[in-house]
Amino acid sequence: MNKHPFDQALRLEAAGSDRPNTWLGASSPAYWNMVGPFGGTTAATALQAILLHPSLLGEPIALTVNYASAMAEGPFSITATPVRTNRSTQHWTVELLQADASGAEGVVMTATAVTAARRETWSANDTPMPAVGFSDALPRLRFGTVEWTNRYDMRPVRGMIPQVWDGAGQGGEEGSLTQLWVRDEPPRPLDFPALTAMADAFYPRVWLRRATRVPAGTVSITVYFHADSRQLAQGGGGHLLGQARGQHFRNGFFDQVVQVWNQAGALLATSSQMVYYKE
Amino acid sequence: MNKHPFDQALRLEAAGSDRPNTWLGASSPAYWNMVGPFGGTTAATALQAILLHPSLLGEPIALTVNYASAMAEGPFSITATPVRTNRSTQHWTVELLQADASGAEGVVMTATAVTAARRETWSANDTPMPAVGFSDALPRLRFGTVEWTNRYDMRPVRGMIPQVWDGAGQGGEEGSLTQLWVRDEPPRPLDFPALTAMADAFYPRVWLRRATRVPAGTVSITVYFHADSRQLAQGGGGHLLGQARGQHFRNGFFDQVVQVWNQAGALLATSSQMVYYKE
Repeated sequence: MNKHPFDQALRLEAAGSDRPNTWLGASSPAYWNMVGPFGGTTAATALQAILLHPSLLGEPIALTVNYASAMAEGPFSITATPVRTNRSTQHWTVELLQADASGAEGVVMTATAVTAARRETWSANDTPMPAVGFSDALPRLRFGTVEWTNRYDMRPVRGMIPQVWDGAGQGGEEGSLTQLWVRDEPPRPLDFPALTAMADAFYPRVWLRRATRVPAGTVSITVYFHADSRQLAQGGGGHLLGQARGQHFRNGFFDQVVQVWNQAGALLATSSQMVYYKE
Repeated sequence: MNKHPFDQALRLEAAGSDRPNTWLGASSPAYWNMVGPFGGTTAATALQAILLHPSLLGEPIALTVNYASAMAEGPFSITATPVRTNRSTQHWTVELLQADASGAEGVVMTATAVTAARRETWSANDTPMPAVGFSDALPRLRFGTVEWTNRYDMRPVRGMIPQVWDGAGQGGEEGSLTQLWVRDEPPRPLDFPALTAMADAFYPRVWLRRATRVPAGTVSITVYFHADSRQLAQGGGGHLLGQARGQHFRNGFFDQVVQVWNQAGALLATSSQMVYYKE
């Protein structure tokens, strides 16, 4: 068994031959956030249930995960259903259920995904990596005491988390821009679930934008995969460059757009999310 | 009955008291694309099924629609299920089924959505509208002979559809950038379904990027709603400014990011999609 904490967090066991689409897992204390596990691991778990499925066609193209409720400590079940299989694409719905304190099962997360067998075609990257180099001398990002942040080595290049919460945030296109190098800690070979989690690893844009720490939590995240598994493996477990920016903040919700490149400058994934915030 | 073709396209009838989450509709010839109706109307139909639901909480925040198969001419059923209702947010799954030629029902579209009762909070738009004015003198976009394009008045400001398919497209951040004014034709008061459809109204970025007309079709679209219904209604049925840009094209799929503003400069929605292309 792989002992990396990320693999342990994503461990799923088949629920049995009478429930062929369902797996059993448990929330991970190693990735604990404030009121549940880090949403990136939940999104990665949705993808993992698809990747484990014996009927899987191709590799991930698009994944959307909606966080319906905070996940509690303890076991859950997750069901990934291939609702339509075409010649080269496959469509998935995913649902994660967990019992609440009273024992009643409730929906904690829903997801949809598209997988596909890709063919080689004309290709072009129109979003080059910003010209920022990686250096071990960059200070590590630490925010608060939440456990999951210890599972990543994050080195901000710009848009560090505010050191003073004085409400003096800046507007404009770069007001909420963060660029950071990120890898699993300890290092782990990159794969689709790990990339998915890293696309969600940015602290809330509203904190940077306002230099004010308000309650915030993702309600929906979408990840588009541009890389294939061979390309992911090529970079080993080295740092990726991630970039996140909020576009609009209004009446309790803001959106965020994300790009993730490897050190060779390949754009591995793009992502967006809608985030709830208070006040 | 409202006679606007968009309202006719979105007409849904309750399937009956034994199927409280299900509605019956039919694909719209007025919005026909090449091998099925315009995907924007399909996405709007997913939202419409939610908006009609008697248990609806709040207004749309996030919507993701996956196109599993081309919709055929004729009737379909659509089921919108509120899978989790919290104090101020609600989570939805949606599935659209249609019988194929043999009479067997298949999944044509899946969707998820989050709706919420918003509260007034600190707000900021960090993505100002490009400084381009609307003018009736701008030429209307016409592409091909597909029927749905007659249902929109689209006036490109930049990134017009190539007039010559010579393969001489341009790269870089603006290589696939289109900015256009768009409204329903004839005009119709703006609401969430109409805004959803307009977020999908851009012709494939790969056509502009390559000046080559290859087969292309959206597999997944996500729309984030920043406006509330009152704000949508304020703009009446006037033109909106939409902007679309491809970030990465690779081995059969590219992604596209979209922003939509009203003429007062309010960012009403942001959107992204992953699009299949051939060759």
